[in-house]
Amino acid sequence: MTLADLLDPLLDPAHKGIPHQCPPLRRSEIGAQGWNVLAGDLPLPLAVIKREKLSHNLGWMQRYVEGLGIGLAPHGKTTMSPQLFAQQLDAGAWGLTFANVTQARIGVQAGARRIVIANQVVQPADLHGVAAMLREHPSLRVLFLLDSPAQLAQIERVQAGPAFEVLLELGLDGGRTGCRTHEQALALARLAHASPAVRLAGIECYEGLGATGDDAQDGERASALMDRVEAIARACDDDNLFDTDEVIVSAGGSAVFDLVAPRLSPALQRRVQGLLRSGCYLTHDDGTYRRMVHAVNRRIGCSDANGLQAALEVWAVVHSLPEPGLAILGAGKRDVSCDAGMPAPLRWCAAGSRTLQAVPGAWTVTALNDQHAYLQLGEGASPLQVGDRVALGISHPCTTFDKWRWMAVVDEGYDVVDAITTCF
Amino acid sequence: MTLADLLDPLLDPAHKGIPHQCPPLRRSEIGAQGWNVLAGDLPLPLAVIKREKLSHNLGWMQRYVEGLGIGLAPHGKTTMSPQLFAQQLDAGAWGLTFANVTQARIGVQAGARRIVIANQVVQPADLHGVAAMLREHPSLRVLFLLDSPAQLAQIERVQAGPAFEVLLELGLDGGRTGCRTHEQALALARLAHASPAVRLAGIECYEGLGATGDDAQDGERASALMDRVEAIARACDDDNLFDTDEVIVSAGGSAVFDLVAPRLSPALQRRVQGLLRSGCYLTHDDGTYRRMVHAVNRRIGCSDANGLQAALEVWAVVHSLPEPGLAILGAGKRDVSCDAGMPAPLRWCAAGSRTLQAVPGAWTVTALNDQHAYLQLGEGASPLQVGDRVALGISHPCTTFDKWRWMAVVDEGYDVVDAITTCF
Repeated sequence: MTLADLLDPLLDPAHKGIPHQCPPLRRSEIGAQGWNVLAGDLPLPLAVIKREKLSHNLGWMQRYVEGLGIGLAPHGKTTMSPQLFAQQLDAGAWGLTFANVTQARIGVQAGARRIVIANQVVQPADLHGVAAMLREHPSLRVLFLLDSPAQLAQIERVQAGPAFEVLLELGLDGGRTGCRTHEQALALARLAHASPAVRLAGIECYEGLGATGDDAQDGERASALMDRVEAIARACDDDNLFDTDEVIVSAGGSAVFDLVAPRLSPALQRRVQGLLRSGCYLTHDDGTYRRMVHAVNRRIGCSDANGLQAALEVWAVVHSLPEPGLAILGAGKRDVSCDAGMPAPLRWCAAGSRTLQAVPGAWTVTALNDQHAYLQLGEGASPLQVGDRVALGISHPCTTFDKWRWMAVVDEGYDVVDAITTCF
Repeated sequence: MTLADLLDPLLDPAHKGIPHQCPPLRRSEIGAQGWNVLAGDLPLPLAVIKREKLSHNLGWMQRYVEGLGIGLAPHGKTTMSPQLFAQQLDAGAWGLTFANVTQARIGVQAGARRIVIANQVVQPADLHGVAAMLREHPSLRVLFLLDSPAQLAQIERVQAGPAFEVLLELGLDGGRTGCRTHEQALALARLAHASPAVRLAGIECYEGLGATGDDAQDGERASALMDRVEAIARACDDDNLFDTDEVIVSAGGSAVFDLVAPRLSPALQRRVQGLLRSGCYLTHDDGTYRRMVHAVNRRIGCSDANGLQAALEVWAVVHSLPEPGLAILGAGKRDVSCDAGMPAPLRWCAAGSRTLQAVPGAWTVTALNDQHAYLQLGEGASPLQVGDRVALGISHPCTTFDKWRWMAVVDEGYDVVDAITTCF
């Protein structure tokens, strides 16, 4: 794929949301079409990103990490959007994070030259894939996670080329991947340092899985984890187990990032590059991340009004009001996240109108089918009619992005001013 | 998009599962690459369709409807795969069903000339989109659902061209769309018959939402619904409210289709075309549809061995065995359904081996993150090692298909013999 095809692909009406009779057009041409979402120019359901809020979030997180003297390697798996990757890199990101080699290749094609694969790489096909990327791009750096001697043995067996840069992963009991104890981690660091197949470049963990929003509980958990990160970093530093001049210390999702970010610059003999890997911050959401970041804001002394802003909405049309108090919308599991809570109605707009209206407090989405949402309207009369449009706020950006091959970028008046595409 | 692009698009390593260094190639070229899944030729995770089982299912359902003297309009939303649409049409399907106009356009491009949109169409953009398709393809027939005077009023307001063919939808109390009472439905049929904007072409319902697998409960529910369908069909027939010579009577998901299919040919004065709309039958699954179709098989006197076969698997690699009894696999919510139950491990294959092994009964996937699965291995020693590969059976084909832009078609030895693409 050429860079032009990646950043500026052709879209056509086979991409949901593109007007049905629209001739194929480049992504970059969409902003000039004069489309407006509320005017009904695009068939719903439609995912939209609000330009101003996206831009605010982009700057907010970059300033946050710069204030701490660390770098940002945003997790690209959230959006898998080459245009958003380019924006993150332009805003000053150190590099990009991905979940696997296929994703990482897209990040490299979009311009990233520092990549963290925040995952074990173990398959021969993937190890050869990393080696090939490194050969193709001499200035490229790719780091991935190591958490077991068994994984190291698989890497040694493949002999894909020069030694791979790896980050030693620490994990939590009952958690996902990562070494559970200091002793396991230190023993693995010694094996890695001794192995010709890898170069130990730093330490990594992920604190986000057990986050609750409760300050004391999340603080204690993150603190214990970061104490372990610091202890193993210091032990590896003392024993000269790091194989790079600069040591990377990385953590960070988007839920409790403030509890780990200040801990990513431990004092070592070697230079340290702290790296936060948040991904969901970019569009934020109206669900689980709004709740979690409300606690972050309180802890760091940022008002919610000045903090991250929900930038992603999915618009749907009312198909039917089949019973009192029930509206069936034409958007479902194929269009909007439901893994971290149901979507939340944010505002609505009558058929034929462009006037945004506030959503009554009682309105609640209680279920999704593949292509439908069940919007409960509560007791009493509702103004909502068949053909009216409802904006749904989402919970968990990752699982909405992967349901769209493109998204419209809109201004405050829902004029479509740009578009992004995704590569899932 | 040209038909060649639709049926035979270019794929490249930006499509997950395509080998990382593979030059761009046409879908139709994949079967000649000599790739084998177990040999590690393709990076995991990878979705595969078993050719023989797919072919069996394709023929099974076609024979089933033919035995009842009705037609099959498979729901295309399940796979959104032009190649599979073409196979369904070639096998004798009457036409195809879709959830919205964007999907329907793809079905028309793939060759369908009879389309049911099993949904309300209400947006001006969508109504104009249907009208445009009908203008572009003079032999095309598109039918969509009508369930309220408010929807009819929206259609009348648009004046998109010749009258649209509609099916009157009956629904269940506490269910989704559709008229709740005979009186509502009959009144709407009269309005539709009198309206210049639509032609009443038949009756539709969907019985699948409340299905439980319990014969008595499902039977009673389906029977009551189909009694209502028959009653309204007869009432419309008696009052000459149908505007077409042939009356379509349609129902059918893939869970309890045997309880509605025999009821789709009520004796009317006009000719009746019964239409079953099952979609998930094509790949079937190892979860909810396996359980539901086990009951179907018992009711229709078909052994499970001769009935529908699970044809879809997602393969993943073991990233880590971080604690006794826990394996972390490199496939998650982005790769495999979890809305109707967790994926189920089916078989596994050691790293570097091509020998399939049986999965111990204790192995259970208990959770998915975006890109990871948690496979619990039970008590005691397990043979599973880092780098080994595990095949996951899925529950609910619709929500696995939409996570892949292509899938490998394999033979019994996991040689990649073909590929399908999807248009979500």
